[in-house]
Amino acid sequence: MAIPVETFHLSAKAKGTLQARIQQMVAEGILSGRFQRGEKLPSTRKLAKHLGVSRITVTLAYTELLANDYLSARGRSGYFVSDNAPEPPDFGPLAPREDRVDWDQALARRYTGGTRLRKPDDWAGYRYPFIYGQTDPQLFDHANWRLCAMQALGIKNFTALTMDQFANDDPELVTFIARHTLPRRGIMAGPDEILVTMGAQNALWIAAQLLCADGRKVAVEEPCYPELRGLLNNVGAEVQSLPVDQFGLRPDSVPDGTQVLFTTPSHQCPTSATLPRSRRDTLLERAADMGALIVEDDYEFEMSFLRPPSPALKSLDEDGRVIYVGSFSKSLFPGLRLGYLVGSADFIREARALRASVLRHPPGHIQRTAAYFLSLGHYDALIRRMSRALNERRTVMETAIQEHGLQIAGSGAHGGSSFWMKAPDDVDTEQLAKELSWQSVLIEPGAPFFASANPPRNFYRLGFSSIPSERIAEGIKRIGTALAKHGAGR
Amino acid sequence: MAIPVETFHLSAKAKGTLQARIQQMVAEGILSGRFQRGEKLPSTRKLAKHLGVSRITVTLAYTELLANDYLSARGRSGYFVSDNAPEPPDFGPLAPREDRVDWDQALARRYTGGTRLRKPDDWAGYRYPFIYGQTDPQLFDHANWRLCAMQALGIKNFTALTMDQFANDDPELVTFIARHTLPRRGIMAGPDEILVTMGAQNALWIAAQLLCADGRKVAVEEPCYPELRGLLNNVGAEVQSLPVDQFGLRPDSVPDGTQVLFTTPSHQCPTSATLPRSRRDTLLERAADMGALIVEDDYEFEMSFLRPPSPALKSLDEDGRVIYVGSFSKSLFPGLRLGYLVGSADFIREARALRASVLRHPPGHIQRTAAYFLSLGHYDALIRRMSRALNERRTVMETAIQEHGLQIAGSGAHGGSSFWMKAPDDVDTEQLAKELSWQSVLIEPGAPFFASANPPRNFYRLGFSSIPSERIAEGIKRIGTALAKHGAGR
Repeated sequence: MAIPVETFHLSAKAKGTLQARIQQMVAEGILSGRFQRGEKLPSTRKLAKHLGVSRITVTLAYTELLANDYLSARGRSGYFVSDNAPEPPDFGPLAPREDRVDWDQALARRYTGGTRLRKPDDWAGYRYPFIYGQTDPQLFDHANWRLCAMQALGIKNFTALTMDQFANDDPELVTFIARHTLPRRGIMAGPDEILVTMGAQNALWIAAQLLCADGRKVAVEEPCYPELRGLLNNVGAEVQSLPVDQFGLRPDSVPDGTQVLFTTPSHQCPTSATLPRSRRDTLLERAADMGALIVEDDYEFEMSFLRPPSPALKSLDEDGRVIYVGSFSKSLFPGLRLGYLVGSADFIREARALRASVLRHPPGHIQRTAAYFLSLGHYDALIRRMSRALNERRTVMETAIQEHGLQIAGSGAHGGSSFWMKAPDDVDTEQLAKELSWQSVLIEPGAPFFASANPPRNFYRLGFSSIPSERIAEGIKRIGTALAKHGAGR
Repeated sequence: MAIPVETFHLSAKAKGTLQARIQQMVAEGILSGRFQRGEKLPSTRKLAKHLGVSRITVTLAYTELLANDYLSARGRSGYFVSDNAPEPPDFGPLAPREDRVDWDQALARRYTGGTRLRKPDDWAGYRYPFIYGQTDPQLFDHANWRLCAMQALGIKNFTALTMDQFANDDPELVTFIARHTLPRRGIMAGPDEILVTMGAQNALWIAAQLLCADGRKVAVEEPCYPELRGLLNNVGAEVQSLPVDQFGLRPDSVPDGTQVLFTTPSHQCPTSATLPRSRRDTLLERAADMGALIVEDDYEFEMSFLRPPSPALKSLDEDGRVIYVGSFSKSLFPGLRLGYLVGSADFIREARALRASVLRHPPGHIQRTAAYFLSLGHYDALIRRMSRALNERRTVMETAIQEHGLQIAGSGAHGGSSFWMKAPDDVDTEQLAKELSWQSVLIEPGAPFFASANPPRNFYRLGFSSIPSERIAEGIKRIGTALAKHGAGR
C-alpha cells in the first residue's frame, strides 16, 4: 500500500535543518509503526510539493534514509520502507507525551470503578462456558440475517437510510414492534409510545436519567443486575435494595415514598424467579397508592419454552405508570445493540429528546435489517429453534446438576437460559470460578449482583445459552469435583 | 401472513362471557390495525389450546365474527380477516388509555425544548436543497460500501462481531484511525487514547458530561452549533459565548477562569472561518496559563480541497489539554453514526466507562464495515471524488452568488461545504426560508446558531453538499429574487 502524502506533517516544534526534520518525520513514522515494511513512500516531487519545500531537500533526506536502511529504492518505481527497517515493538504512541493536565481536577464526574460483570474476552475459547447473555452462533440464522442486511443495503433503502434521521426511528421497525412483538406480551402501544434504543442498557440508562436524577427515591431488587445499580448511583438517585424470594419481589417490601421501582418480573435477574399474577396485581396497586412509577425490564421474555410467557406487567397497567424495557440482545445478538422503551407518549417524547442529545439515533441500517428479519418471519423461526435447543439443554443441565449434587437456588418457571446456583456457605465462588477456569470451565460468581458491602459469596450463575448440550455433563461434573475438593478441605 | 397464536392474550380486565371476550379480542386486533385484511387466524384448535379454553368456545366466537364479516372462512384452509372487515383509520393505540401519571412531577429532568436545527423530513424532495451536513448519494461509493458490509457479515467476522464487546472498540477500526486518519491531522495517538463514538454528537456529549458538569465554566463560540450549547446547558455548565471574527475565535476573548473551551478551528461552525496558526499558538498558551482544557471539534476536515488542511490544534498540543472530536458523518454518511474522541489515556478511560454505561459500544458490524472501507482505500478515493465535486460546486456557487448580488459573510479557506451568508439587516431569514421553501428552495436560517435571546435575524447558511452543480445557479437566482422583493417592500 502507498502511504498517502497527506499523512506527512512537519512538526513545528522539531529542531534542526529542514532536511533533518524530514528524515526525522519519516523515521518516526516507521518507528511508531505507522509506516510498515514494504509500503511505498510518496515521490520526492509529491512530498516536496505537499510540504512546500524544494525537491532537492526531500531527495537528500530520502538518500540519507536509504543509507541508514530505513528506506530502500526499487529503480524507477520509487522509495519503499526497507525490509530491514527497525520494527516497532508494538503499535502505540512513540514517545509518551508529558501530560500536564491534572485529571483528578479536570474530570467533573467519574464513571470508572462501578461493579461490572466480567468474562474473559476469549471466553469462546473455553470448552465449558457456562456464561450468560451471549448468543450461540450455531443457533443463529446467519444466512437470512445476511440476506436481510443486503436488502437493507440495496440502493433504494441505502439512500434513505444514510440520511441523518435526527430523532426519528425506522418506521418499519417500530411498526413491527407495535404490531407483533408487544402484542405477544399483551401490550398495545402506538408509534409515539415506542423508542428504539441502543440495547436494553441504553433503555435503562435513559429511564434512569429522566426519572431518577437528583436524589429521587428508587428501589431495585436484591440481588440485581449490577450495572443498573451503577447507573442509578451515577445519576444521583437514592437507591434502596429489596431482597427477593423464590417468587421474586415482595410487593409489601417496597418502602413508602418510593418514586421509581426497577423490576424484572418475567425472569428475575439473576435468580430467574417469575413474579406470580397475584403479586403483579398487588404491586401495581401499591405503586398506584404511592404514585410510584415502575420500570419493567423484560430482558429475556422470548426465551419462554416451558409454557407461554405470562403477560408483561405493562399489559396490566392502565395508569401509564409502567415503563417497559425490551431487548433483541438475547434473541438476536448482543453486539447488535437494539432494544426499545415503551411508555406514555409524554415520557417517550422526553426520552427521544435525551437520546437525540446523546447520540441522535441508532444506525438506520441496523434498524432496517432487524425490521426485515422480523417481518419475514425469520425471527419467529429463530426463537422456535433457540427455544428447542435451550429446552433440551435445560433438561441436560438438570440431570447433571442432580447427578453431581449441586444445588439450584432459582430457575425460571417459563424457561430462561440460566440457573441461579448455591454452593455450600463457606465456598467463595470468585475463587471457585478462578480454579475452574484453569480447567476450561467458566461460571459467573454471584457476589457482584448484591448491593451489600459484605455480600453472600457462595452463589453463582450457570448460563446455558452458549454451551452445546453434549458438553454440559462434563462441565457440571468438573464443577461438582471442584466443590467436593472444597468440602474435603473443610 | 399468518397471525402467530402468541399475539393473542385475553385481557384480564375485559368483561362478559369467555366467548364474548374472544370475539372482542379478535375485533380489537382488527380495529387497531394489528390484524390486516387477508391475514390468516390461528385454527380453533390452536387458539383454544393457547388460551386454555375449550375449542367449542373459540369456534362459536369465530362463527359470530364470520356473521359480522370481521372474518371470512375459506373452506378447509381456515379463517382469515375478511376483505370487508372494518379498516382502522390509521395505526395507533385503539382507545387512548387514561394516563394517571403527572409527568411534570415524574420527570426529574427534561430534554425537550432546546434549540435544534430543523429541516423538512422530505428535504430530498426539494429541487434546490441548500442544506448542510447530508451526503450526496450520487457521490457515495455505494457498491464498495456494500461489499465491505458483506465482508463484515461473513461467517468468521459475524461470529466475532455478534458478541457483546463490553467496553471495547473494533481494533481494526481503531488501528486505522490511529495509523491513517489522525496522522493526516498531524496527530499521533495510541489505541488507549482513542474512543469510537456514535458520531460527533455523542463525542461532544461525552466530553461535556465528563468535563463540564456541575457548574464548570465553559466557553463556546458565537455563533455556534446550537445542539452543543443545548447539551452544555443540560449538564449544568456555566456557558459563556465568545463572538468570532473572520478568522474565528479571538484567543484574548477567552475569559479568565474558563475551565473548558469548545472550538471549531478548521471550519468555524457555522461561519467556516479557519483559525490562523498564530492564533492557535496563542490559544494554546492562554489555555496553558489558565489550566483550561480545549475540546476541538474537527467535524469537517476531510473536505479541504482548496489547499491541504492545516494541522489540527491537537497536533500542537504537548500538554494533553486538547480533546479532539472527529467524525465520519460528513465524509461517509450521517446515518452511520460513527465518530471518535482522541485524548489522554486518563480521559479516554473515563469516556469509555461512561459510554459503556450509556450504550456499551457502537455496533460491531458498523465499525468493521467502516474499517474495511477505510483500509481498502475506498475512503480515500471517495474523499477525492467528493472534494472534486465540492470544489466544482463551490466555484459555481461563487459565480452565482456574485451574479445575483448576494453577500458572503464567511467561507472556508481550505474548502468546506457551505457559505455563511448575510442578507440585508431588515430581512428575517426565518421568514425568507419559509417563502423560498414554497419555490422548492431550502436555506438554513442563521438565528438558531446564536446564543442571544435577540440574535441577528439576517444571517443564513447555504450548504452545497446535497445539491447538484447544475441546479445551483437557478437556486441562487431564486434566493436573489426573493431578497430583491424584500428590498422593494422596504
